[in-house]
Amino acid sequence: MALLSVLTPVLAVVLCLVIGFMLVRSRDTETTSTSPDKTKAASKANLRPWVDQDLQDDTESRAREEEDGDWVDSNEEEDLPHVPYSPKRYTEETMLERTKDFYTLMNQRRSVRFISPEPVPREVIDNVIRTAGTAPSGAHTEPWTFVVVSDTETKHQIRLIVEEEEEMNYRQRMGDKWVNDLAKLRTNWIKEYLDIAPYLVLIFKQTYGILPNSKKKTHYYNEISVSVSCGILLAALQNAGLVTVTSTPLNCGPQLRVLLKRPANEKLLMLLPVGYPASDATVPDLKRKPLDEIMVHM
Amino acid sequence: MALLSVLTPVLAVVLCLVIGFMLVRSRDTETTSTSPDKTKAASKANLRPWVDQDLQDDTESRAREEEDGDWVDSNEEEDLPHVPYSPKRYTEETMLERTKDFYTLMNQRRSVRFISPEPVPREVIDNVIRTAGTAPSGAHTEPWTFVVVSDTETKHQIRLIVEEEEEMNYRQRMGDKWVNDLAKLRTNWIKEYLDIAPYLVLIFKQTYGILPNSKKKTHYYNEISVSVSCGILLAALQNAGLVTVTSTPLNCGPQLRVLLKRPANEKLLMLLPVGYPASDATVPDLKRKPLDEIMVHM
Repeated sequence: MALLSVLTPVLAVVLCLVIGFMLVRSRDTETTSTSPDKTKAASKANLRPWVDQDLQDDTESRAREEEDGDWVDSNEEEDLPHVPYSPKRYTEETMLERTKDFYTLMNQRRSVRFISPEPVPREVIDNVIRTAGTAPSGAHTEPWTFVVVSDTETKHQIRLIVEEEEEMNYRQRMGDKWVNDLAKLRTNWIKEYLDIAPYLVLIFKQTYGILPNSKKKTHYYNEISVSVSCGILLAALQNAGLVTVTSTPLNCGPQLRVLLKRPANEKLLMLLPVGYPASDATVPDLKRKPLDEIMVHM
Repeated sequence: MALLSVLTPVLAVVLCLVIGFMLVRSRDTETTSTSPDKTKAASKANLRPWVDQDLQDDTESRAREEEDGDWVDSNEEEDLPHVPYSPKRYTEETMLERTKDFYTLMNQRRSVRFISPEPVPREVIDNVIRTAGTAPSGAHTEPWTFVVVSDTETKHQIRLIVEEEEEMNYRQRMGDKWVNDLAKLRTNWIKEYLDIAPYLVLIFKQTYGILPNSKKKTHYYNEISVSVSCGILLAALQNAGLVTVTSTPLNCGPQLRVLLKRPANEKLLMLLPVGYPASDATVPDLKRKPLDEIMVHM
């Protein structure tokens, strides 16, 4: 009894330590199991097992923290000699006419998914890509690669990858409605134009470059730059009488990058099927906002 | 002594509970103080006290997780009737000529920081903005606002905000080199063209819209869409014989948004000074990559 009395405090201490330890452990477990990021990431990984690290591109957000201002403000360019620049100047009347004509031309542009299989001269596509390459870019990095695919088998491989992803998107998004709406939905994820269009233009952004000393060089604003370049490409296509539909199949990026043998610093930004419109092409009857809804003058 | 012996286990239990509680508390504190995100955010906040929540824009990354595919695949558009589309078609010869001419025109475009104060007809600017508004956008949201500033005092306010930010950038980035390189650097953060150019075009992306039921409607791909629109705007300016320099003064976004009275869903993406080039304008003597460095054919 005396022994027990002596041991009691020791037992109590051991018991308390065990309880304390369990308390700490339980908090750890709680933290882990309720972390929203980890739970989301885990469930995402289950849903889309093929989405790899490739998509975790935070180049833009980092760029915004580190660099601002004019895109020509790079250190490299500071050392370049300046040369006089005196482009063509038009009269006010000519300017009005030219801007009105260009607006009329561009306003006829529509996203078209019904593309004719007729061949288009390769030189026309070359000129269109050359034109896209005149876009400005952050620190003049020109961070774009235009992969022009006309090979039938490669186009078909691209279609398989894109449709698999699209189908997955629709199935996951629609849930119960899936079975009922199947007929309607099929028109969304079946993309015949990927086989039919004479050219598929896959636009990659180069998220970083490699310096002579093998170090990475961040390409600031690469996504914005490549998107600006894509705008000029759309203008060039419209000017040529060709059509396309702007698509951003980003979840297929890693697979398409591997298929097209592009290096790891390149991420797919857009996929544009290019050709003449099909003779029976249709477009949804939508309108554009009038000027006073998109412009404010001060 | 007997009383003490009886109380010992109780004291031990109390002591252990106190120790256990302190252990749990210390882990909480540790978690908080070593969280890299919070530490980074706090030190950032010290460096740039004026950078507000406005810049924390993760719309794009969320969009990528949730939505893919063609930009015209929105549910709203599925319900629109389709109409026939048969744009102008050119002969192969004409296509080659048109694409070559357009490339020549666009290849003459350069980013110009020496802008003439001469007035430019307002209608020309209207046509250029109209043209930018023909760009495609995710789910046809047209998520852009073009703020055209010609008021002298407003332009000067914009200059003060931009230069304050630019100066801060250069000072922080350059550190010790600052004092020595002052003369050279001044040319970088002094932006006279913001006072001189007859127009400043500030391009805002609408990160979300407001539905009739007052709920937010995510604008998918708003940054890519607005950048594409900017590419078409650059083409329209070049076609008119006007010049600009593409700048992305993102850290001034919140201040400029307030100055220009834009709503909270709009974030500044680009600032373009627009006008004729100055008669003594110069540009850095840089070259563009040749076609075989930007295009791959398969």
